[in-house]
Amino acid sequence: MIEHPAYDVAPWSLRESELNFDVLPQSESVFALSNGHIGWRGNLDEGEPNGLPGSYLNGLFERHPLPYGESGYGYPESGQTVINVTNGKVIRLLVDDEPFDLRYGTIRHHVRELDLRAGVLRRSCEWVSPAGRAVRVRSTRVVSFQQRAVAAISYEVEPLEDQVRLVLQSELIANEEIPRVAGDPRVAAALESPLQAEENSASGTRLRLVHSTQRSKLRVATAADHRVEGPEHTTKISSESSDDVSRLTVTAVLDTGQKLRLEKFVAYGWSATRSLPALRDQADAALVGALDTGWQGLLDQQREYLDDFWERADVEVDGDTEIQQAVRFGLFHVLQAGARAEERAIPAKGLTGSGYDGHTFWDAETFVLPLLTFTSPRAASEVLRWRCNTLPVARERASQLGLSGAAFPWRTINGDEASSYWPAGTAAFHVNADIADAVVRYVAATGDDAFEKDTGLQLLVETARLWRSLGHHDHAGAFHIDGVTGPDEYSAIADDNAYTNLMAQSNLVAAADAAERHPRHAAELGVTAEETAAWRDAAAAMTVPYNADLGVHEQSAGFTRHQVWNFTATDSEDNYPLLLHYPYFDLYRKQVVKQADLVLAMYLRGDAFTLEEKARNFAYYEPLTVRDSSLSAYCQSVVAAEVGHLQLAHDYLGESAMMDLEDLENNARDGLHIAALAGTWTALVAGLGGMRLFDGDSIRFSPRLPDALSRVAFRLLFRGRRLRVEFTRTSATYTLAEGEPIEVLHYGEPFELTTARPVTRDVPGYQHRPEPSQPAGRAPRRRHHPA
Amino acid sequence: MIEHPAYDVAPWSLRESELNFDVLPQSESVFALSNGHIGWRGNLDEGEPNGLPGSYLNGLFERHPLPYGESGYGYPESGQTVINVTNGKVIRLLVDDEPFDLRYGTIRHHVRELDLRAGVLRRSCEWVSPAGRAVRVRSTRVVSFQQRAVAAISYEVEPLEDQVRLVLQSELIANEEIPRVAGDPRVAAALESPLQAEENSASGTRLRLVHSTQRSKLRVATAADHRVEGPEHTTKISSESSDDVSRLTVTAVLDTGQKLRLEKFVAYGWSATRSLPALRDQADAALVGALDTGWQGLLDQQREYLDDFWERADVEVDGDTEIQQAVRFGLFHVLQAGARAEERAIPAKGLTGSGYDGHTFWDAETFVLPLLTFTSPRAASEVLRWRCNTLPVARERASQLGLSGAAFPWRTINGDEASSYWPAGTAAFHVNADIADAVVRYVAATGDDAFEKDTGLQLLVETARLWRSLGHHDHAGAFHIDGVTGPDEYSAIADDNAYTNLMAQSNLVAAADAAERHPRHAAELGVTAEETAAWRDAAAAMTVPYNADLGVHEQSAGFTRHQVWNFTATDSEDNYPLLLHYPYFDLYRKQVVKQADLVLAMYLRGDAFTLEEKARNFAYYEPLTVRDSSLSAYCQSVVAAEVGHLQLAHDYLGESAMMDLEDLENNARDGLHIAALAGTWTALVAGLGGMRLFDGDSIRFSPRLPDALSRVAFRLLFRGRRLRVEFTRTSATYTLAEGEPIEVLHYGEPFELTTARPVTRDVPGYQHRPEPSQPAGRAPRRRHHPA
Repeated sequence: MIEHPAYDVAPWSLRESELNFDVLPQSESVFALSNGHIGWRGNLDEGEPNGLPGSYLNGLFERHPLPYGESGYGYPESGQTVINVTNGKVIRLLVDDEPFDLRYGTIRHHVRELDLRAGVLRRSCEWVSPAGRAVRVRSTRVVSFQQRAVAAISYEVEPLEDQVRLVLQSELIANEEIPRVAGDPRVAAALESPLQAEENSASGTRLRLVHSTQRSKLRVATAADHRVEGPEHTTKISSESSDDVSRLTVTAVLDTGQKLRLEKFVAYGWSATRSLPALRDQADAALVGALDTGWQGLLDQQREYLDDFWERADVEVDGDTEIQQAVRFGLFHVLQAGARAEERAIPAKGLTGSGYDGHTFWDAETFVLPLLTFTSPRAASEVLRWRCNTLPVARERASQLGLSGAAFPWRTINGDEASSYWPAGTAAFHVNADIADAVVRYVAATGDDAFEKDTGLQLLVETARLWRSLGHHDHAGAFHIDGVTGPDEYSAIADDNAYTNLMAQSNLVAAADAAERHPRHAAELGVTAEETAAWRDAAAAMTVPYNADLGVHEQSAGFTRHQVWNFTATDSEDNYPLLLHYPYFDLYRKQVVKQADLVLAMYLRGDAFTLEEKARNFAYYEPLTVRDSSLSAYCQSVVAAEVGHLQLAHDYLGESAMMDLEDLENNARDGLHIAALAGTWTALVAGLGGMRLFDGDSIRFSPRLPDALSRVAFRLLFRGRRLRVEFTRTSATYTLAEGEPIEVLHYGEPFELTTARPVTRDVPGYQHRPEPSQPAGRAPRRRHHPA
Repeated sequence: MIEHPAYDVAPWSLRESELNFDVLPQSESVFALSNGHIGWRGNLDEGEPNGLPGSYLNGLFERHPLPYGESGYGYPESGQTVINVTNGKVIRLLVDDEPFDLRYGTIRHHVRELDLRAGVLRRSCEWVSPAGRAVRVRSTRVVSFQQRAVAAISYEVEPLEDQVRLVLQSELIANEEIPRVAGDPRVAAALESPLQAEENSASGTRLRLVHSTQRSKLRVATAADHRVEGPEHTTKISSESSDDVSRLTVTAVLDTGQKLRLEKFVAYGWSATRSLPALRDQADAALVGALDTGWQGLLDQQREYLDDFWERADVEVDGDTEIQQAVRFGLFHVLQAGARAEERAIPAKGLTGSGYDGHTFWDAETFVLPLLTFTSPRAASEVLRWRCNTLPVARERASQLGLSGAAFPWRTINGDEASSYWPAGTAAFHVNADIADAVVRYVAATGDDAFEKDTGLQLLVETARLWRSLGHHDHAGAFHIDGVTGPDEYSAIADDNAYTNLMAQSNLVAAADAAERHPRHAAELGVTAEETAAWRDAAAAMTVPYNADLGVHEQSAGFTRHQVWNFTATDSEDNYPLLLHYPYFDLYRKQVVKQADLVLAMYLRGDAFTLEEKARNFAYYEPLTVRDSSLSAYCQSVVAAEVGHLQLAHDYLGESAMMDLEDLENNARDGLHIAALAGTWTALVAGLGGMRLFDGDSIRFSPRLPDALSRVAFRLLFRGRRLRVEFTRTSATYTLAEGEPIEVLHYGEPFELTTARPVTRDVPGYQHRPEPSQPAGRAPRRRHHPA
């Protein structure tokens, strides 16, 4: 947890006004730049000190053997992990023979600022060397949204008091030493020097390294070029190269008032198939493009890209400045994670760290894609196209498991299952319905018929086939899905998990509907009328467990009969997360919920519950839910808002929003929680804004505010239109900024919205209910009331 | 599977009349000699060819790291595996410079015979060397029941046609090369050369090696001495020693009619605590004892020991000669596994192979101890004393799991949990009730009050405490045990497993009863009246799931609602065992039973079911039970007999009996299935004989025979008495060979049995029911009907 006030609260930036070595690893994640293709952690320009050096390329990974004490049929043999690729960020500085290293000497001033509108990381530092030489260093770093293979740095040094001799070393470094994290020595070994040198060169100001990975057989080329400005007579340049380091050296003698300035342009290319010459050319071509654009050109493009993004996606929050900052921070990082992923996955940490081995999970579709769908729909469709590209592997996995259709992996980089603990991996089949749900949501929000035909339909059909083969009818005709694991990872291998069954139900119906909309494409996939009828039958007969005595839905069959976890005995922070202190066997068999499961079902399948049911269920599950997952708070916020616990909705919104900025789970060092960041947006838009898409033809809002907030406004794209929704505690105003007239529902009442004029409606009151309690010590931090 | 008629059928021996290299590994298991302390596989005297060289000492193991792809709280970090200790069996022979190696030259004749009354392995061989020299080799091997640290070999060579020069090399060999079995390279590495040399010596005819293990820090001393008889003038002896080999060499020139004879005495000592000198002395002392007894003396002692055993334990079967042989073979091997274990475990394979890493499981208490309890009660009590000695570790494990009392390990050598897959390890808590059941059975069968006070009570109390903390009452007061795994390993992590709950119920009651019988000892264990009342409450409120629609008990809550496995799709031998061809997730969630679970409960807790319920349940579970475990057939045999399927009872008896002799599970090479061998006895005594002990004061029989058998007779010890029960299809005769008069029940009708005269009673008829079917292709082999 970041205890000190690490970051200044400001609406459009994240500013760190002094350097704190203790939270260096966390700040590297927070200040990471990415475009979804390249990711550069916010490591200091000079490379050291660091927490975790990190340069990532989406999809570039190494394999390692997965060990089992007792093996079993269908266990994946090979794991995958993202690797730290060639570091193009490093610019070392020597000041009169003293390395510029902030652990020594005196820091007079050190500011870093992530500018959310400019899309750059700026740094400004005044430092006095141990020998007493004072310099100012300013740098700006950009990972280009417009040129996805390109990142660049501008680096400027000036002496403050005396003449100094400076040496700058701008490098490409492969196989950097990284701290050991993995427990398995074989995994660690696979990652120690993951890159095998293939080629290196240094010529003039241009550097290049080409490497390949040993087991996954991926090749990566990194090229850099430089523009140097310094005092004409004293500035000298040389370069050299070896297997793992390619280096440009600039020396200069500067008087006060003079500056040495370096622009560094870096381009990456990687491929599983392209030859070394082809890949070398690819990186060089990207580099030439960047050089041609120039430093200022890159900054201008970046600004333009982000202006457009904020224009369609910004969220305004009055009354809680931290959340205002956090939601924009979240929007920015989610954009960074997905903007240019382009037929690659969005990992749980984006490209901000190596946490979870760089794997993608269900949260990409369920938590991240909603934001992208309504703000950057193309990015959302690219993720789903990636899933579709992995269908051959997913079909093979289903077949290995004795199932029809496709079984998508629980965790993966390239589409192969990489989870070695099946009760919380393979058994979590809901990932398949989550993907289908993302397809339905995307098509409903965009009307992208071409996508549905060429991509969505395949995903819907193959996942529906999976569900039909995974479930079965009992003798009374009810359809059951047994022995699976829902979102709550403190339960596993349960029968009729309500979330899974409800999501499978809509998956089956959506597949049948889509097949009927596109009969020719469906026929190509072998879909028959008998098959769609079987899907509809299974959906209609789907079991959703309910405890009539308690009047609540069961998370899974028998759940409410289980013993309630002894929360009194685990009321200290030291007992959490429970999974580090208690065995799975005990967690699984008791009523204790790691993360929203039935509560998430009540959001995503809100149509399956009455408001009263939602309120009763929420009241039942709140005291059982410990939120040991970053994926929980925002779901609880959405449902709390719907059932009328507005203060609690605000509290959970705050928890989701501050997950990384306050490092609430003590692991922001490994990368940001992209899903929680996206969830913050959802908590505002679907929670407080009450946005729902049920049938896709219209869009519904039921806006409502907690006491502390005076105004919320958000923008989004819907079926080619730009919408703006702004609401206070008493009224809501809907604006159509662009596009054809559209039907909007305000608290269930439809009206037509046109660009001609905004529509304002009153916000009705709502039933107040007693606020439910959380497990001892697990209440979210109360957000401030206004005076 | 051993396809050829490997062994001659004979009532008191197992005789192999030719050497078949294809089944060498299996025959090494079948011909293994052991006394429960030392185990020597039936490797050929000359060491090679071999399948798996094996010399074991009970409890001597090495540790190795347990790997996890994703680790979890409470997972054991360290595995254990039995190691192949110093081989004292090897006697190599050179015939005129040609090694006596049966892979070369010509075998004229080769016979091996395990003599079940003499307790020795005899071998006789005539061989012609590639150079044409013919010799006869005879050897006899004994592992002494009376002197538990001692084994010995007599080895005799004679030329058959010409004078030959012979060289005998009698060796102690440490760190023999063994075939790789473990999949994990780290485990294999730990076992490659497990013994570190500490001392070696060779002096005259005496050899000695002392080694210790690297991680488990156990020291083992092996000493050998020899008696040589050969032609006076030509016989010469020398010896030499190095780290891992100590060797006696005998050379002689023999004319036809002359013999060279070697007696080799081997003694082992091992300890975790004793010093090198102390352990050296221990092995030497045992050796001196053996030398003093002499070869013939050892044979005489062995015969005496076995005469006594057969007198109290023999089972006669008329009408199925294979089963007659197999049941004695089983009795002999179970005796070998347990006779002198003395506060050590009985591993699943005894000391006949390294299968299951030499671990002991619940089958020691549930399957092996019944036989020992009624035939060698001291051996049974020693196993339970071993469990009691491991209580400190079991208490610690319970505490780690958040439970009270003791949690015994699922698999172990020294008492530490060594199972790395918790759903089929830690979750199988029934092992604790199985231990308690063995205590109750032992005390009931022996009346050993001292044992109950000093050992049994502790085991009962600590296991009862476990159950009380593992289960909970629901709001209606019913007691449930959730999220555990019963005997059927094709289900896991289920609620209210009927077997577990019923065994826990009797565990709780037995603990309360024993505590009330021994109030002073109970008080020392901290047992209060409140605590025993809580045990009785939980037992009285125990849930046993029942499906009223089907009229059958559920193996666990909801089991009968699950989808039935598609047996039609898995009707080929190639699909079995299912666990090698289908994922656990699919097995767990469907109605498919690996091994008797509810059916075992109906035997061990027969009092909890009516006969009609037993018949209905048996008919329901038979078509679901695939018997992918060697632990299943005998339980099915017992219950089949009780509900009146006598032919089926005979078939299952046959399957259990022939498990190793016909290698039905294709893994007899790794060691014998000691539990299945013991189960054969149980199928005869408790199945056909209908023996039950319910309240311990009397003993009940309900004998009944299938058509093919004409007579069965068995002997057993009960409360210090020697009983004999003999029955045909029409009548049963009960004889008290020794001891005070006793009440016996024949089909529920009590009578007094005295040594004065046997009592004969008619065998009543029984209700014939339609025989249930088994899954496609999984019916047991039908035993022959008489003509």
